[in-house]
Amino acid sequence: MLEVKTPEEVLALIQKEFKPLGEAEQISYTEAPGRVLAEDITAEEYVPDFDRSMVDGYACRAADTFGCSEAIPAILNVAGEVLMGQAAAFTLPRDACAYVPTGGAIPRGADCAVMIEYTEDYGDGTVGILKPGSPGMNLIFRGDDVCPGKPILKAGRVLTAQDIGALAAIGKTQVPVVRKLKVGVISTGDELVPPEQTPGPGQVRDVNTPLLTAMLREFGAEILDFGIVADDEELLRETLRLAVRECDAVILSGGSSVGVKDAACRIIEEMGKLLLHGIAVKPGKPTILGKTGNKPLVGLPGHPVAACTVAKLFVLPLLERLMGREQESYTLPAELTESVGANHGREQINACRLRRENGRLLAMPIRSKAGLITQLAGADGYFIITRDCEGLPKGSEVQVYQY
Amino acid sequence: MLEVKTPEEVLALIQKEFKPLGEAEQISYTEAPGRVLAEDITAEEYVPDFDRSMVDGYACRAADTFGCSEAIPAILNVAGEVLMGQAAAFTLPRDACAYVPTGGAIPRGADCAVMIEYTEDYGDGTVGILKPGSPGMNLIFRGDDVCPGKPILKAGRVLTAQDIGALAAIGKTQVPVVRKLKVGVISTGDELVPPEQTPGPGQVRDVNTPLLTAMLREFGAEILDFGIVADDEELLRETLRLAVRECDAVILSGGSSVGVKDAACRIIEEMGKLLLHGIAVKPGKPTILGKTGNKPLVGLPGHPVAACTVAKLFVLPLLERLMGREQESYTLPAELTESVGANHGREQINACRLRRENGRLLAMPIRSKAGLITQLAGADGYFIITRDCEGLPKGSEVQVYQY
Repeated sequence: MLEVKTPEEVLALIQKEFKPLGEAEQISYTEAPGRVLAEDITAEEYVPDFDRSMVDGYACRAADTFGCSEAIPAILNVAGEVLMGQAAAFTLPRDACAYVPTGGAIPRGADCAVMIEYTEDYGDGTVGILKPGSPGMNLIFRGDDVCPGKPILKAGRVLTAQDIGALAAIGKTQVPVVRKLKVGVISTGDELVPPEQTPGPGQVRDVNTPLLTAMLREFGAEILDFGIVADDEELLRETLRLAVRECDAVILSGGSSVGVKDAACRIIEEMGKLLLHGIAVKPGKPTILGKTGNKPLVGLPGHPVAACTVAKLFVLPLLERLMGREQESYTLPAELTESVGANHGREQINACRLRRENGRLLAMPIRSKAGLITQLAGADGYFIITRDCEGLPKGSEVQVYQY
Repeated sequence: MLEVKTPEEVLALIQKEFKPLGEAEQISYTEAPGRVLAEDITAEEYVPDFDRSMVDGYACRAADTFGCSEAIPAILNVAGEVLMGQAAAFTLPRDACAYVPTGGAIPRGADCAVMIEYTEDYGDGTVGILKPGSPGMNLIFRGDDVCPGKPILKAGRVLTAQDIGALAAIGKTQVPVVRKLKVGVISTGDELVPPEQTPGPGQVRDVNTPLLTAMLREFGAEILDFGIVADDEELLRETLRLAVRECDAVILSGGSSVGVKDAACRIIEEMGKLLLHGIAVKPGKPTILGKTGNKPLVGLPGHPVAACTVAKLFVLPLLERLMGREQESYTLPAELTESVGANHGREQINACRLRRENGRLLAMPIRSKAGLITQLAGADGYFIITRDCEGLPKGSEVQVYQY
């Protein structure tokens, strides 16, 4: 029998036993938000690709304006006008200027742009500059933002809308992303009926399939639903075999009876290797992890709150590992509105609601005996009470992981 | 000319001038994650719908076990076994017990369940109870978690995976959600080419359409892309008219030239009412907001960093208002790794990267002169420097909004 592991040991085990799949696909950048970048992205072009003005005004040589003032303007000949979206297809002679719009190209010879507010158009083909320029003033030079070879985004990043904007700017409209994982979801239990069905006596609705499906889809996985399997070893074996063939990872939940847990362990040992039987976390202790090749087989507890907790804490990191996804998740420091007791010896995961009040963030722990709906619906996140802690008094600071 | 408004004034204006659409649709709960709940959800059933055991063991009357111990067990007749998923279709006589699995139904007459660890099967149809029970011990009673009429989820909530689990548990498989908003996106500018195209001299790629599309889709809107419109008032008028007919909101970006901004204002005034011309925020000052009926028309700055900032700060709250979406977003307190200067008189929005180091969360401000890719790609969030602040020293605590 494998011993119960601490959460840290489980996370280390995941890193040790599983490798990133390393399978990428090219997709359009418009489909890429939320996907995991498979390769580093490096610029291949200059952005901008020409010297641009940052203001509406006149491009000129700064030296031609030195010493000017409102009292004694520098008088420059208007040598032309640059139109938006067009090249500045002329070279500026000395003592001349050219009108440029914001974002417009700068003619050769010009080294600054003077805002229109500091100029006066005399209407005779000359303009007075009322404030001296300096070289580079109000200009963005070619490549100021990006030069070929500049690293833009790192492999492993989950692409945001801003990243998509950056990819658009450098013309990277096909993006290498990690292919979506196919995750098989199986619920076991003689007592389960699909949520659409009204439970008969002794029956309850299958909560884990829709819950895990929603969570893993949001994470970016493709879900294959293998339905509800009765507590029958042969049926479970067949379903697991089928799921492993079609999926990159298989998540089994339920099997609250000892017999089914044992059966799942036996089947995993037949198919590959059992890595873990039990995590020192509450809720979530009766968790199994095994593998066949590089494919994880996870047995989650049957209770939805426990299944959800283990999925968040260990299944998502496991899928991250397979995908080479590198995304930190940050916690929110919040103040406990009530004291919370804890079981000595196991890390305790406590769901909570969040509320802001007078600039402070408050965490309201959710408790209940049965704890199914009450702990799931409306929760904003959870905090962890470490194994060596017997409880937290009201007013303690907790670190909240958001759902 | 309308005066420049502070960010707070703009948010108040949005609340005042726009009303929630109040249009709902029924969808399957499996499609509901990320959608906005249109009505409060109340339970219509009991969860669980029968008294259940929380342990594997023997259901019995606590009174029959009072005073027992390992030395003097209470000897009970085994009156039956409850199977998982089946009714406990018998009543327990006195001095009797029945085997129940975790989650199994409790027979009538039993008022507690004793864990199997505290029992001894004598193999003769009797079981010894080694530890006294107490009424209610290890049981979940019918409706302990949810009773009919219990409020489960509030209208306006963005549904999470956990919420989907709760909906499954109460059999709410059709869910009333706010219908998706149709948002029209228009980019203007003679200098813009689609990202797929290599820009010619004086041209740049259109970054705002893909950036805003990704951001608004992630938010849950349906995007209608009206493409790139040249700086031409008549063309802009036609496109805006078309977009307003088909959409719930129209987001125009670009028009960096004064002429186009003026044209956009004129068109908005023809079509409805101009509400705002300029926000005291950096970047993002040249922002326009108008409406026709309850449909917002937004003119964002052309610079992608500014467009992105204004979209985050004001367009998303505007769409939230239309949807009746009520979702708090929480900030992460982080420590500035470098000092940041600020322009007196305008709220400054500063992009940053986040890094955890020795348990502290660090915010690394992103700066650059041109600030397009550099400020977009790889940023993790942004912080705000208030209008009355001239800068923040290294080591200051900032509140980071995550992208």
